Amino acid sequence: MTQLKEIYLAYLDCLNRQAWSELADYVDPEVEHNSRPLRLAGYRHMLIADYAAIPDLQFEPELILCEPPRLAARLKFDCSPKAAFMGLAVNGRRVTFHEHVFYDFRDAKIARVWSVIDKAEIEKQLP
Amino acid sequence: MTQLKEIYLAYLDCLNRQAWSELADYVDPEVEHNSRPLRLAGYRHMLIADYAAIPDLQFEPELILCEPPRLAARLKFDCSPKAAFMGLAVNGRRVTFHEHVFYDFRDAKIARVWSVIDKAEIEKQLP
Repeated sequence: MTQLKEIYLAYLDCLNRQAWSELADYVDPEVEHNSRPLRLAGYRHMLIADYAAIPDLQFEPELILCEPPRLAARLKFDCSPKAAFMGLAVNGRRVTFHEHVFYDFRDAKIARVWSVIDKAEIEKQLP
Repeated sequence: MTQLKEIYLAYLDCLNRQAWSELADYVDPEVEHNSRPLRLAGYRHMLIADYAAIPDLQFEPELILCEPPRLAARLKFDCSPKAAFMGLAVNGRRVTFHEHVFYDFRDAKIARVWSVIDKAEIEKQLP
C-alpha cells in the first residue's frame, strides 16, 4: 500500500515537472481514461494539451486512499486556464477546483482512470 | 476494512429505502459535507430534498476503496430529475451520471464527506 502511494506521488511529480519522457514509467501502454482507450501516446497527448491550456497547472494531492491494485485521490488545482475550460469562460482568471479520481494499477503502472472534475466549483468562481 | 465496507453498503441501502429514521446509525451528529457543517439534521434535510427533486433516485456503487477510517466510492445514478438539476434543464429526462465521493468515518459513522458530481457528464446528455 505504501509502495503504491509512493509510486503515485512520483507520478504526480512527473506530471508537475512535465517530464513526459518518464511517463511510461508510471502509465501502462494500454491505459484507458474514462472508458476511452487512449493508450500511452493519447494519454501523453491529453496531458500536454492540458499544460498548453493551463501553463501553471500543478497536481496537489489532498487525500489519497489505497487498496492495491486500486488508488483513489482528491486532487486540488489552483491555476489560470488561458481561455475556455470545460466550456467555461475562465479566460486567464485564477480558479481553485478539485478532481476526484480512481486508478487501477497493473504491474505498478496506471492502467485505468475514472476522473471527475468539479465543474460546479469552477462556475461559482466566475462572474 | 471489510467491516467498514459492509457499514457503507448498509448506509447506501438505508438511502435507497429512504429509511430516514435509520440515518443516525450511519451518520455522525456533527457531519460535514463539502466543508459545510450540516450536522445530522441538515444532512437528512439534504437527502430528503434530493429525493423530492429526483423521486427515482438510487445509489449504486461501482467502485469502493477502503483505508480505515476513510472510504472512497464511485457511485452511479440512472434517474430522472423532475425539473432543473445542478442548474441544468433536465426536466424529467432520464440521465446517467456518476459521483466520486470520499468519506471520513468516526466511531463507524460518516463524519466528513467530500463529494463531486460529474456535471459535464449530464450536460452531454442534454439537447
